[in-house]
Amino acid sequence: MSVYLDHAATSPLRPEARDAWLAAVDVTGNASSIHGSGQSARRLLEESREKLAHVLGCDPVEVLFTSGGTESINLAVKGLWWARQSGGVVVLPDGEHHATMDAVTWLTTHEGAEVRAVSLDGVGRISLDGFADSLQGAALATALVANNEVGTVNEVARLSALSAEAHVPLHLDAVAAFGHIPLSFSSIRAEADAGVGLVALSVSAHKVGGPVGVGALVASRTARLSPLQHGGGQQRGLRAGTQDVPGAAAFAAAAVAAEAEREHESARLSALAQHLVRGIRLAVPDAELLGDPSDRIPGNVNILFPRAHGETLLFMLDQAQISVSTGSACQAGVAEPSHVVRALGRSDADARSVLRISLGRTTAAADVDELLFALPVAHERAAASRARADARS
Amino acid sequence: MSVYLDHAATSPLRPEARDAWLAAVDVTGNASSIHGSGQSARRLLEESREKLAHVLGCDPVEVLFTSGGTESINLAVKGLWWARQSGGVVVLPDGEHHATMDAVTWLTTHEGAEVRAVSLDGVGRISLDGFADSLQGAALATALVANNEVGTVNEVARLSALSAEAHVPLHLDAVAAFGHIPLSFSSIRAEADAGVGLVALSVSAHKVGGPVGVGALVASRTARLSPLQHGGGQQRGLRAGTQDVPGAAAFAAAAVAAEAEREHESARLSALAQHLVRGIRLAVPDAELLGDPSDRIPGNVNILFPRAHGETLLFMLDQAQISVSTGSACQAGVAEPSHVVRALGRSDADARSVLRISLGRTTAAADVDELLFALPVAHERAAASRARADARS
Repeated sequence: MSVYLDHAATSPLRPEARDAWLAAVDVTGNASSIHGSGQSARRLLEESREKLAHVLGCDPVEVLFTSGGTESINLAVKGLWWARQSGGVVVLPDGEHHATMDAVTWLTTHEGAEVRAVSLDGVGRISLDGFADSLQGAALATALVANNEVGTVNEVARLSALSAEAHVPLHLDAVAAFGHIPLSFSSIRAEADAGVGLVALSVSAHKVGGPVGVGALVASRTARLSPLQHGGGQQRGLRAGTQDVPGAAAFAAAAVAAEAEREHESARLSALAQHLVRGIRLAVPDAELLGDPSDRIPGNVNILFPRAHGETLLFMLDQAQISVSTGSACQAGVAEPSHVVRALGRSDADARSVLRISLGRTTAAADVDELLFALPVAHERAAASRARADARS
Repeated sequence: MSVYLDHAATSPLRPEARDAWLAAVDVTGNASSIHGSGQSARRLLEESREKLAHVLGCDPVEVLFTSGGTESINLAVKGLWWARQSGGVVVLPDGEHHATMDAVTWLTTHEGAEVRAVSLDGVGRISLDGFADSLQGAALATALVANNEVGTVNEVARLSALSAEAHVPLHLDAVAAFGHIPLSFSSIRAEADAGVGLVALSVSAHKVGGPVGVGALVASRTARLSPLQHGGGQQRGLRAGTQDVPGAAAFAAAAVAAEAEREHESARLSALAQHLVRGIRLAVPDAELLGDPSDRIPGNVNILFPRAHGETLLFMLDQAQISVSTGSACQAGVAEPSHVVRALGRSDADARSVLRISLGRTTAAADVDELLFALPVAHERAAASRARADARS
């Protein structure tokens, strides 16, 4: 029986989302068509928008459905840049997700943007002082609500207030945080003014048990934003394209279900995660939990194994049918050292020696125990392999 | 019982696509993850890419999955622009889809592009001479394979050859054509060289019975293209974002099913369409079929009713539970005069007096007969309403 402990990469579809999708595909019609069939699809779309807005603490009109977190982030970062009224600087904390980093890099190489980096502390939290110092005259700022690798939660209401004071629009990447910690767009934005402070927030469906290929950008009414894709005037003219009504319905159903069980699941997953960390440290005494020990995504366990390559450990566990992740994205099948772990002030060697174990809705205590059962041998082999490699070099 | 005759706006999900989607959501794992779960998802993704490539007549590596036609078109048009090596001109035929027009307009206002328009003939076909004349030194050209409003099929192999001769990369928008007429990327590209002639072709899943929110861009290996959304290095680095495996599987299943029945369906829908046009002209003798009478999308019937507003007619038919479209996109619920009908050399009044009736897989002879039964009264009322409005003004 395989054990899936990579919920941060993608979490299985919830039954509520599957049912909502199936019900919605039976409603034939393009939500932009003006006939009755189209309007039935439109009603279902707007109901889904309302449900998601309720969970996100924003107005329905502020919810733009997208194709996922990467599109939402690109729309926010590039859209705020293109619509900026002044300034040529993008405030970019260290350790952001690749979608943000790579979108900003493109702005520097293609659009002449200048990056001001903001350092993280040793647990991966964005420095408030560093953030405040970087805002002067910036075109936009962006930040993770919670780090997708080490799980640390940022002080996002303060980041929004600081941005508002400096008259800078702020985008928050909530892809990893949504569904796992309390999150309200209007609360975070409480001290912000029109068009500055928090103006845009990215979320993704498949991280909360909705379908892959669906996401949303919350864009405040006063946000100055240019579209990423042009065409039909759907969604306030900010995101063209035939709207994916079944995807939106499934996302809304998943978000509602995730929010309904969030407090209970938080407690359950935190307890499981603590049990996991204790077990790992019994098996591998020099293993170290990275990120904030308490203020973190409940199901996130990011562990540094100083004597083993994370990638080797991942393969060893995979042979035992246990799916975990290294700290880093591995799009090409090649694990790079984690830029997040580097941003914590760790060495390149450390940044190659981490595992991200992410628990979620379908994770049972038995799954954690299977990992703990398999770990000693897997770690012993991975450490021996590393020692041999080090001896050769 | 409602009658759905707006398949060009969106076509109901095919059972094969629904089954493929349901089977794929049970494969847990992010296709970019390197563990076994991720690799299972990856295999399913690559099998889907192969199936779609086979239908499209291209190599699997040339298929980039996207969130739909609008994204594919934006990626192609902006991506070719950003990656251009010289030239500041975009060749844009009249009567293109809004996604193309609006993406190109953004390039003119934001990126300093210059547009060279190409006129259509009276049936909506791109003038080959006009196209050839416009190519000199252009950065890129774009064209519809078949017009989404009036259905006329363009001479795309000639457009590709002319572009290749002029050393210009060409994007084809095949969203309306795919699944309805023979289409092979490699055949159209036969006379093209590396990086010029046909290099990119856009398709959408929901027009062939796949899910909404899924599309593809065929991008030849030698195409010089910049990404629209940055992030993880998925899909040759040209389209970042977690890949929608169930969406890809459902699209591939729909495309295979559509292609398998295409010849038979073409004949069936052409006959139904001819029956419909004859019936309309019996009921409303001054009604006129727009577009090429024979070389057109088989299920497309675009009719000019000189004495009625298309929008009024649409509402009258909608009251009889019959869903059709005006010639134009109606994203905001307001029907604009069709820019395509204008491009046929017709007046603004004519451009407000068209209906697009699009037949598809689920259309039976009884549906066509219901429309023909309802039309005389609907047209009489719409014409009377128009006459009253004209008398007042």
